[in-house]
Amino acid sequence: MTLLLTNDDAESLLSMPEVIDELAIAYSDLAQNQAINRNRSDTAIPRPEIDASYVFKSMEGGYPRRGVYALRISSDIIQWPGKGEGQQRKEKLPTLPGNRWLGLVLLFSIDNGELLAIIPDGIIQRFRVGATNGLGIKMMARQNARRIGLIGAGFQAGTQALAACAVRPIDDIRVYSPTQAKREEFAREWSEKLGVPVTPVDSAKDAVTEADIILCATNSMQPVIQADWLQPGMHLSSLKRFELPVECLRRADRVAVHTRLWEPDMLMMGENTLPDDALWAERKASDGIDWLNQPEIGQLTSGQVIGRNNEQEITCFMNNVGLGLQFAAAGALILDKARRAGLGKELPLEWFTQTVVS
Amino acid sequence: MTLLLTNDDAESLLSMPEVIDELAIAYSDLAQNQAINRNRSDTAIPRPEIDASYVFKSMEGGYPRRGVYALRISSDIIQWPGKGEGQQRKEKLPTLPGNRWLGLVLLFSIDNGELLAIIPDGIIQRFRVGATNGLGIKMMARQNARRIGLIGAGFQAGTQALAACAVRPIDDIRVYSPTQAKREEFAREWSEKLGVPVTPVDSAKDAVTEADIILCATNSMQPVIQADWLQPGMHLSSLKRFELPVECLRRADRVAVHTRLWEPDMLMMGENTLPDDALWAERKASDGIDWLNQPEIGQLTSGQVIGRNNEQEITCFMNNVGLGLQFAAAGALILDKARRAGLGKELPLEWFTQTVVS
Repeated sequence: MTLLLTNDDAESLLSMPEVIDELAIAYSDLAQNQAINRNRSDTAIPRPEIDASYVFKSMEGGYPRRGVYALRISSDIIQWPGKGEGQQRKEKLPTLPGNRWLGLVLLFSIDNGELLAIIPDGIIQRFRVGATNGLGIKMMARQNARRIGLIGAGFQAGTQALAACAVRPIDDIRVYSPTQAKREEFAREWSEKLGVPVTPVDSAKDAVTEADIILCATNSMQPVIQADWLQPGMHLSSLKRFELPVECLRRADRVAVHTRLWEPDMLMMGENTLPDDALWAERKASDGIDWLNQPEIGQLTSGQVIGRNNEQEITCFMNNVGLGLQFAAAGALILDKARRAGLGKELPLEWFTQTVVS
Repeated sequence: MTLLLTNDDAESLLSMPEVIDELAIAYSDLAQNQAINRNRSDTAIPRPEIDASYVFKSMEGGYPRRGVYALRISSDIIQWPGKGEGQQRKEKLPTLPGNRWLGLVLLFSIDNGELLAIIPDGIIQRFRVGATNGLGIKMMARQNARRIGLIGAGFQAGTQALAACAVRPIDDIRVYSPTQAKREEFAREWSEKLGVPVTPVDSAKDAVTEADIILCATNSMQPVIQADWLQPGMHLSSLKRFELPVECLRRADRVAVHTRLWEPDMLMMGENTLPDDALWAERKASDGIDWLNQPEIGQLTSGQVIGRNNEQEITCFMNNVGLGLQFAAAGALILDKARRAGLGKELPLEWFTQTVVS
């Protein structure tokens, strides 16, 4: 039997503290060779007639502790507006009927191979990104960190704040995003959701000054903060590889990354690289940072490497590239809770199995 | 709308000549950078308690000519019985309720990202393997080849013979497999299906002597024929990388392969390699053949390389590793025909899409 779940199911079942705890276990397992991850691949086919690309993304991870293997896929038409104007962004177009997108997590049993669940990836995606940066904060920020400077008011910003609040005694959040109405709306919505005052401010610098934790949660392909805004003891948290200027990384006493699998397997039909990968290759070649030797989050959660040595250090966590394993861990959590709550629609085993061996 | 199809649907819709023609186009497109393929990955998790491994296999391919992108996955518990006894085989266990397996093709639209179809992979798998070797025969065997020596009477052997009959005037097939009852049953069944006499014989050598085309269609991890059985003008066709001894390959005047992507991306939790990959690495290191420089089938179908120069040459085609693109091409064919025939079950768009961007 395959359980078909919705984003609403996922949202009603997941709690940030639980996802953080589950991911900590999964990352530690991975660091100890008790879990496995298949690097993300992005395969792109140009769609020049609409100045876009079709991109199929897939990633996988096995989490034996919970008996599951996850495949996460997305099938998108992507544009990069603002190219050449210094404000390049990456936009997935809602091309499906009803302005919808396609992103799915398929969860398999490593006991008998069964397709256990089909879950849209939108909510899990936010939780796993938030929870991963939350773990970065848990392992690296000062214990008494209480003030957040948040850059970004989009869909990731809220879960980033939620995750921070789950691991530190946060009592003050200042949010900046370029559009005034958007940051004000975000502040109203999330003050209530978090039970912590969220104040919109007029500049990134205003958000960041006096913060204990800087949370960057944008889809920007340009830096969103400046190195001379940093103060001793701060923790920097980022979820896009371009958000932090290289000067910030050089100034940090410690930098950890989500994974050393920095490079998704990129395949392009026709062109050579997608715009963001071209940018990243350029940046990496020039920044002088040994990206393949920064500790991974699993080395922190498993105690192999410490995240902070004293109150004065500037620490930095880059949630650089996602892992299939995150979807196995969060998926296992959802499936377990959905079964207990009787949620979801059961689809016949026969639909996704066969009597013919292949 | 996503169309859910069955193996019966696939079998009723596919014809070998059509699959051969469609694959010829797809391979030519790939050779001309008008299609794309994501290399197969096999991710394995040891299941020592049952002397097996959980293996998740995935491969992808995009076929813009038909507007589709295919993901083919399998989720299997695999054993390698006979290990250490010189008779090693690879067996996928039917661990799902009702002795079933899980292998699926998901077909996506590169126009809007939609999941167009879900199709079990068992029938497509046989057609695409048969059709690929059939193309090898079409491009490399003598025009007047009429006699087949077939080694193997398992599930691939029949489609191999079917494909050969689609491209050459075959009028005599001799089949050998170790179990007498099995080869006799195969001969009865396929004489009727092919309309060509199929005769069971007592040894591989008897099957092969005087054949114009040798078809190896086993799951053996040891050679199944010998080089001194070869005669001028023969075409050798193989679908497992271990079936042909290296002496056969050295004796062949021309060798072509399905793909130069010889190495699936192998990931193992715990151990280093799966038994068949370990064997292949050993073989490759010692056989003195420049495997990365043999022509691919798409170079033959697109006319970049010739398959045979005269009647005396011994030619050889190794269907070494599968491509996701095969599933895109065969999948597009099935989908198109299923729509016209009104076959399949329509599943709601909402099940596999979302209003949340990820």
